[in-house]
Amino acid sequence: MSHNSFGHLFRVTTWGESHGPALGCVVDGCPPGIPLTAEEVQVWLDQRRPGQGKFVTQRQEPDAVKILSGVFEDDRTDGQVTTGTPISMLIENVDQRSRDYSEIATQFRPGHADYTYFAKYGVRDYRGGGRASARETAARVAAGAVARKVIPGVTIRAAVTQIGPHAIDRSRFDWDQRHENGFWCPDAQTVPIWEEHLEKVRKAGSSTGAIVEVEAVGVPPGWGAPVYGKLDSELAAALMSINAAKGVEIGAGFAAAAFSGEENADEMRMGNDGQPLFLSNSAGGILGGISSGQPVVARVAFKPTSSILTLRRSLNEAGEEIDLRTKGRHDPCVGIRAVPVVEAMTACVLADAFLRHRAQTGGAVFVPGR
Amino acid sequence: MSHNSFGHLFRVTTWGESHGPALGCVVDGCPPGIPLTAEEVQVWLDQRRPGQGKFVTQRQEPDAVKILSGVFEDDRTDGQVTTGTPISMLIENVDQRSRDYSEIATQFRPGHADYTYFAKYGVRDYRGGGRASARETAARVAAGAVARKVIPGVTIRAAVTQIGPHAIDRSRFDWDQRHENGFWCPDAQTVPIWEEHLEKVRKAGSSTGAIVEVEAVGVPPGWGAPVYGKLDSELAAALMSINAAKGVEIGAGFAAAAFSGEENADEMRMGNDGQPLFLSNSAGGILGGISSGQPVVARVAFKPTSSILTLRRSLNEAGEEIDLRTKGRHDPCVGIRAVPVVEAMTACVLADAFLRHRAQTGGAVFVPGR
Amino acid sequence: MSHNSFGHLFRVTTWGESHGPALGCVVDGCPPGIPLTAEEVQVWLDQRRPGQGKFVTQRQEPDAVKILSGVFEDDRTDGQVTTGTPISMLIENVDQRSRDYSEIATQFRPGHADYTYFAKYGVRDYRGGGRASARETAARVAAGAVARKVIPGVTIRAAVTQIGPHAIDRSRFDWDQRHENGFWCPDAQTVPIWEEHLEKVRKAGSSTGAIVEVEAVGVPPGWGAPVYGKLDSELAAALMSINAAKGVEIGAGFAAAAFSGEENADEMRMGNDGQPLFLSNSAGGILGGISSGQPVVARVAFKPTSSILTLRRSLNEAGEEIDLRTKGRHDPCVGIRAVPVVEAMTACVLADAFLRHRAQTGGAVFVPGR
Amino acid sequence: MSHNSFGHLFRVTTWGESHGPALGCVVDGCPPGIPLTAEEVQVWLDQRRPGQGKFVTQRQEPDAVKILSGVFEDDRTDGQVTTGTPISMLIENVDQRSRDYSEIATQFRPGHADYTYFAKYGVRDYRGGGRASARETAARVAAGAVARKVIPGVTIRAAVTQIGPHAIDRSRFDWDQRHENGFWCPDAQTVPIWEEHLEKVRKAGSSTGAIVEVEAVGVPPGWGAPVYGKLDSELAAALMSINAAKGVEIGAGFAAAAFSGEENADEMRMGNDGQPLFLSNSAGGILGGISSGQPVVARVAFKPTSSILTLRRSLNEAGEEIDLRTKGRHDPCVGIRAVPVVEAMTACVLADAFLRHRAQTGGAVFVPGR
Repeated sequence: MSHNSFGHLFRVTTWGESHGPALGCVVDGCPPGIPLTAEEVQVWLDQRRPGQGKFVTQRQEPDAVKILSGVFEDDRTDGQVTTGTPISMLIENVDQRSRDYSEIATQFRPGHADYTYFAKYGVRDYRGGGRASARETAARVAAGAVARKVIPGVTIRAAVTQIGPHAIDRSRFDWDQRHENGFWCPDAQTVPIWEEHLEKVRKAGSSTGAIVEVEAVGVPPGWGAPVYGKLDSELAAALMSINAAKGVEIGAGFAAAAFSGEENADEMRMGNDGQPLFLSNSAGGILGGISSGQPVVARVAFKPTSSILTLRRSLNEAGEEIDLRTKGRHDPCVGIRAVPVVEAMTACVLADAFLRHRAQTGGAVFVPGR
Repeated sequence: MSHNSFGHLFRVTTWGESHGPALGCVVDGCPPGIPLTAEEVQVWLDQRRPGQGKFVTQRQEPDAVKILSGVFEDDRTDGQVTTGTPISMLIENVDQRSRDYSEIATQFRPGHADYTYFAKYGVRDYRGGGRASARETAARVAAGAVARKVIPGVTIRAAVTQIGPHAIDRSRFDWDQRHENGFWCPDAQTVPIWEEHLEKVRKAGSSTGAIVEVEAVGVPPGWGAPVYGKLDSELAAALMSINAAKGVEIGAGFAAAAFSGEENADEMRMGNDGQPLFLSNSAGGILGGISSGQPVVARVAFKPTSSILTLRRSLNEAGEEIDLRTKGRHDPCVGIRAVPVVEAMTACVLADAFLRHRAQTGGAVFVPGR
Repeated sequence: MSHNSFGHLFRVTTWGESHGPALGCVVDGCPPGIPLTAEEVQVWLDQRRPGQGKFVTQRQEPDAVKILSGVFEDDRTDGQVTTGTPISMLIENVDQRSRDYSEIATQFRPGHADYTYFAKYGVRDYRGGGRASARETAARVAAGAVARKVIPGVTIRAAVTQIGPHAIDRSRFDWDQRHENGFWCPDAQTVPIWEEHLEKVRKAGSSTGAIVEVEAVGVPPGWGAPVYGKLDSELAAALMSINAAKGVEIGAGFAAAAFSGEENADEMRMGNDGQPLFLSNSAGGILGGISSGQPVVARVAFKPTSSILTLRRSLNEAGEEIDLRTKGRHDPCVGIRAVPVVEAMTACVLADAFLRHRAQTGGAVFVPGR
Repeated sequence: MSHNSFGHLFRVTTWGESHGPALGCVVDGCPPGIPLTAEEVQVWLDQRRPGQGKFVTQRQEPDAVKILSGVFEDDRTDGQVTTGTPISMLIENVDQRSRDYSEIATQFRPGHADYTYFAKYGVRDYRGGGRASARETAARVAAGAVARKVIPGVTIRAAVTQIGPHAIDRSRFDWDQRHENGFWCPDAQTVPIWEEHLEKVRKAGSSTGAIVEVEAVGVPPGWGAPVYGKLDSELAAALMSINAAKGVEIGAGFAAAAFSGEENADEMRMGNDGQPLFLSNSAGGILGGISSGQPVVARVAFKPTSSILTLRRSLNEAGEEIDLRTKGRHDPCVGIRAVPVVEAMTACVLADAFLRHRAQTGGAVFVPGR
């Protein structure tokens, strides 16, 4: 219910502004007895960390996470484990560069949340975007690291499939490739195209959008629930809540609008393992809001970074018309750094769906023929 | 939290199966003193009603709504008004054709929720799709009718902008046109193209997808909230929960991925009315999860109806491989009938956002220069 | 969250006014596959039904419940079973005596919710108390009937332990006795005392309070959760929400304030069944908000019925000072008829706690020494 | 929904264990623009702080609170103010005396949550009671400090009215007195009686229970809502969630069970200020779950501290029967230190009720005769 929490049983609350002393999250509802250390969480945070290439912001943040509660270790536990009580994680803000914010303090940067925060609250922490900063997503990644441990049988991975107008060639999709370049690109031949595009964008002081695709393999049938707790509905909310997200689709998504019924309705056969097998996955692993056992597939569209050097017409708090350009350290393409965030949000949604499913049914899956 | 409810303060719970005695909803949290009659709700239900053309299902349902609670009238009220207590609305199922369901009772129709309901629950009301039937959306439309009255200054309207591969020409977009044809089509010249396409689809026993666009005009700045209660996040969840929805986008949506920063960042000027004015609306009326005062614009992709006459490979509950075709009364394009549902869900989300905004801030908007 | 719902996973929403066409509830989140018929629900409703003695209201309501959704039966199910989808239950209001309400329409009956509903909403259905009527509790009893079937190993039973100043003698407490009299009295020797007291009260046109005690036997250790989802906290909210409830206590309750630490801290031994055994139950079966395996024991204090024939000073909507007496068909002691309601609310809280526990932990209990 | 959060719109999430590095809370949904400093919060924490007398635990904790987010200050704000985003507050644990916990690590202290945490989770942080420690209430007090600022017109104050078997004489009730002694006692003549009682208890290594009474003056009519969001229901849940609470009553509470209808139904007259005036307040300021404008009055019963030096029979994790005495630094009467916690929880519930009321109705109150 609250504005800064999500999830029902695996519930995440985040807090913190870009230039406050720290940011963090509280994860409530995590099952007990799960091995969990700060180092394990750090692995995922390191993937999201800025300052790792010329196409991402140069802000230097170690993003070192501390676990303040909810874990315990003694000689009878399997190392440090969760206790079932709330897991509080904290990340200090270190590199809040002491710059002069007086200029943007009263100005509304086009495409930013500056104006809407002003209109709603009357007051806002304008330094670095305050609560609307992408720094908030560090807390999501920390929560996602915990979520992954709740559903160890599920593998969640995301990649960038389009930057600006340049989409990958899906016939060359190779998950292993995404770690071989700075763009999470699963298609080696697209990498130089993106490099050239981003270089042009960066030099122009402009920015560009992107699309991120995520898949979760190993989700058993039965997660999610009709009709407002649908798994796709929960995923859509979670992914759309990421900064700069403008669209979410499941499986074939918008392409399904042009499909015929034959293309859409994934046929079924019995697999060698005695489990139902779908011959295609237009549905993206979700039917009627419930997982089908196929990979859950979603895609998120990210708009270009709003902070650009081009002079843009705007207003200030006094209601005066102004022209402004947004300086500062900014990614030209926020979609790239969103990849670990998309994974984290997917993990949290699935962990929550797992717990809800276990609550209502005990967690068993009915298998045809058994 | 519960699976069959949505909204936080304006909260809607729906219940009912396709072939049960009735379906309905409970709307809780509605403000008191709002004039509301069953006739007003019926207006919207009549728009959703099947049996109104050859491209929609021939099931004949009057969908007559009764209001069972939450309203009152005496000589001091402005006709029948809401009391602030839960509004229970009921729609009887009348035309549950007494057919033989024995065939599909144990079979999984490809593209349907048959298999996933079985896998999750072990038992399901297979008659007409049970809870997964689009009949459930009648309850949403009833709730939406109440929601509209909570935010009388907001106009919500939707249209179909694509059927199959045939998109409208946006330069001819005319909201008035959508009532002039059976497709909610806002572009008169596209109507014959869709007619021809649907006729072909119908004759082939196939089906086709569609895209529905909705806009809400008159939403003041300030509705929605960071960072998981974002207005776009709430909209995405609500729209994705509609039967057959596979994608949701806000404003420029997926197209924004190909945008430059300049195209994306809507510039601002002061309007003649002393209110900020955006020179474009790529954002779809939402920045940082909070409404900007521009029209809120969203689009939903619907997959083709899964019920097709073509023989498809599948399984039954015994785990046997079967071939089946889905008979029965079905829309070849569920996207058309989804239009009033998309409007209703948007209305509910906005009514909820209005109440939440009023709770936290008192409801006032900060205007630059005042 | 919503005002007229309770429970988190086993979630109950009720609706309806005393003199509207019907009242009912929607139970969402019920596990699938549980045999459930309207007849089974009716058994509990019949216990709550008014018109069963001279000390309860003479309103004649059959309170016949219909199940409108969420159940299904075919030749493969164990009779009619739950499907995991929302269970909508409806009870028609039959005996809404066509009396003249013009007198109380604008008057505030002392002790009633008349004034507070007016102050909050400005409009209210004053007929029979509207939403504040004890008729609403019929919906709770229906929901409780479902809840009991979710936790079949738990036996829930309540009794009246005090009426007016007359408490039972606990040394004579005999659960079997409560069905032998019209007061749910577990102490046969107290029955004539209450009869005399109530006769006096009735003749005086007055009313009297009562205390109801409930116990749930068979609750395993582990239900409930720190620190705001404590089982006692949930029970307190649920029981305090019953009409006329003014106090709730768990185990020794208020008496514990006078206890020494030795009296309070229930000692433990290992039982013959290999399960921990407490040598006393001051805690009422709950420690740290989590069930201990001992019987869960709670007590609820009910104020006297506010409707009395004695002339009382009050106000009307015009702000005028008036004197009024409340006529109509009223129980002199609402506590008596609250017994099935107390049981029902306890059942709902426990069913919810069971599901939440199963979600987080899988449902197993850790047993010392295993 | 989550276990460690409460409130709906003014939502508090707490985290932390007794002997972890820190504890804290996140307050979400607070209105923007409210002046708030750490110093203001500290004032209330100092009232709860242990180590302030011989009848409270000797653990020395400065309980210095830091506000990590949700506030902002520049030359245009009224000092440091809330921004409407989540307020994260952190209190470091300083005096975690490095003692040997090996003894109790596997033992269940009677009356504690040791056994139930073990049974539920299998693992627990046994140091100082872990999550079940009363240290958690520091976070509640911090949240309550914020809540008070949301409803500045409401005065909330609590006092101890009974310790062990010794109740105050209500005819001598004087709120000013409660600051004149170490017991929050509003009756000067009772102070020496309690001193003697507690000295005896302390010397015996025993403990004693208590009752705390809280009142909130200045709550306007209209807060709270039927029928499961009743103000008394919310209060009951909040107060019962405090460590060692075993009972909650509103207004006359359990005494109302012995009342006649005449005693119970508070009569009304019009006050000199044109507002309705009740001639008594048996209802404790709440009718039908909605505030009446009278002081909201509640009482909480606390059991004796479970940690006593007397040898008690118990079990250990191996299932062995043991005898144990609980050493350590413990209050003989937890009820005393609960006073600021009772106030804080009441403040949080009322702030939440205020926001919910404003959401549904706009916040206005209907006054008879206007």
